[in-house]
Amino acid sequence: MHYYHHPESGLSFDAIISTVEEAFAEHCRGNVQMPSKVYVTFDAGDFRTMPAYIPGLDIAGVKIVNVHPGNRTRGLPTVMALTVIIDAETGEPTALLNATDLTDFRTGAAGAIATKYLCPKREIVLGLVGSGRQAETQLEAIARVCDISEIRVWSRKERNQEAFLSRYSQYEGTATSLEQTCDCDVLCTTTPSTAPLVSDEWVSEGTHINAIGADAPGKQELDPAILARARVFIDDYEQATHSGEVNVPISQGLYSPADIAGTLGEVVCGKKGRNSDREITIFDSTGLALQDLAIAKIALENGDGLDLPFP
Amino acid sequence: MHYYHHPESGLSFDAIISTVEEAFAEHCRGNVQMPSKVYVTFDAGDFRTMPAYIPGLDIAGVKIVNVHPGNRTRGLPTVMALTVIIDAETGEPTALLNATDLTDFRTGAAGAIATKYLCPKREIVLGLVGSGRQAETQLEAIARVCDISEIRVWSRKERNQEAFLSRYSQYEGTATSLEQTCDCDVLCTTTPSTAPLVSDEWVSEGTHINAIGADAPGKQELDPAILARARVFIDDYEQATHSGEVNVPISQGLYSPADIAGTLGEVVCGKKGRNSDREITIFDSTGLALQDLAIAKIALENGDGLDLPFP
Repeated sequence: MHYYHHPESGLSFDAIISTVEEAFAEHCRGNVQMPSKVYVTFDAGDFRTMPAYIPGLDIAGVKIVNVHPGNRTRGLPTVMALTVIIDAETGEPTALLNATDLTDFRTGAAGAIATKYLCPKREIVLGLVGSGRQAETQLEAIARVCDISEIRVWSRKERNQEAFLSRYSQYEGTATSLEQTCDCDVLCTTTPSTAPLVSDEWVSEGTHINAIGADAPGKQELDPAILARARVFIDDYEQATHSGEVNVPISQGLYSPADIAGTLGEVVCGKKGRNSDREITIFDSTGLALQDLAIAKIALENGDGLDLPFP
Repeated sequence: MHYYHHPESGLSFDAIISTVEEAFAEHCRGNVQMPSKVYVTFDAGDFRTMPAYIPGLDIAGVKIVNVHPGNRTRGLPTVMALTVIIDAETGEPTALLNATDLTDFRTGAAGAIATKYLCPKREIVLGLVGSGRQAETQLEAIARVCDISEIRVWSRKERNQEAFLSRYSQYEGTATSLEQTCDCDVLCTTTPSTAPLVSDEWVSEGTHINAIGADAPGKQELDPAILARARVFIDDYEQATHSGEVNVPISQGLYSPADIAGTLGEVVCGKKGRNSDREITIFDSTGLALQDLAIAKIALENGDGLDLPFP
């Protein structure tokens, strides 16, 4: 059994995107075992257990990940993750990966895959609502599948907008209002909001949206009216209806699960997709164990771990 | 984050039994979060993910455990387990325990707790159907709660019976027939059988049975007629009806979940129990995440781990 402290170091987004895309395709083909996330709740947060097996990639295991909103005051990340890899032939745990950064990267990869298939343009203006770690990995991953002519970024705090733009000074970038940020080709929403931030009238025809922030019941970033006029793709039906962007509108009767256009796996396999350049498309991302195993697969091929005695 | 390779070393069965018993009591009081085991299956076996949180013991985490029946030919254990401990305040994974031996010990502890509460005698003849690791831990744990005047052991292979008795030569012991083994005060069945081994007519009034072997659909060790005339206690309703001793009789219509007398937690709390010295009582053990966390709690207080960098 090996422990990998920084399995993300040296990983290329091209390789991550390619492997995560293959995992989504295997999901669509019915070749992935992936029981639903299991939640255990604490006063201060929760942890989620995410087991899966992708025979086509020869990888199985479990990601264990917490969400503790008060951690920053303790100097700890809000989200920390550990992935345990299980050998399919023997059941032996063979690897342990510090998966905190891997989690950000695999979420970025899903956004890039959705953008590659659902955005009708290859040269884009990228709008970012939120300027944290998730905004960074969306930008970095989408840059592998599109030419980004301009980035527009909005954050509640002006200094966060400026800091973000200075980190990505190779791009033409503007710190804009929320409304102006939404005037773009690809919009990524990455905030922990529990009330809609993006108004329906700000979103033009043809926009593709990666709705990343909502990953728990009660969270939402988009005006439900946008969902009503868009083609909405999700990663997994059970997770999305429980905790994705669609969860609040569904619970309020403003959106029906029957209106969901399909899964990202179906998009990757060519079974579902955008119908016209004028449609709005939305990818509602909640984060799947198959993404965690796909990126772990690449990380294990790439890195050396610390040998731990087992069994 | 610390890794514990041999967290079982130096543990006393008295401490294990006491902590596992407290965890069962907390379960009965409704103070334990324990979602059902989640299974992922392979061609060669499976792995199970078992998360839980016991606030009263201040411990949370996940056990990950496989069952690969062909492993012995590879020189590996059939069952290997790893427990990840999560800090409730921060969600950080703080400890990783090699839990293969801990799993055996916590199962032994549950058998001892059931015996302490359900066997009407304090000096007993102990019958063991099966002579492997589970038989050893049943014996060792039960010896902490009863005086064992004699052990009777049966195994398919005579040399295994003799080897078992030579390992426990401090006891008066006999390698007997299956029928003679069942003529005892406390009977522990610990085989992977998928057909009844213990006939109804061999079990006398007043016997207490720990039915340990059945832990997956299709497994059973007892003639269903024994269940029909016994008071049957289980560890957890969902797990027992899915994979415990009662699972096959229920699926065949020979036993009804409504006939289950109660849980071990209810027994420990004094809410349920044996009604007379002449009754047969059965504890149907499937193994719970709360047992794994309880023994991890003791092991962490007891041992030094290898420091691993995280996050």
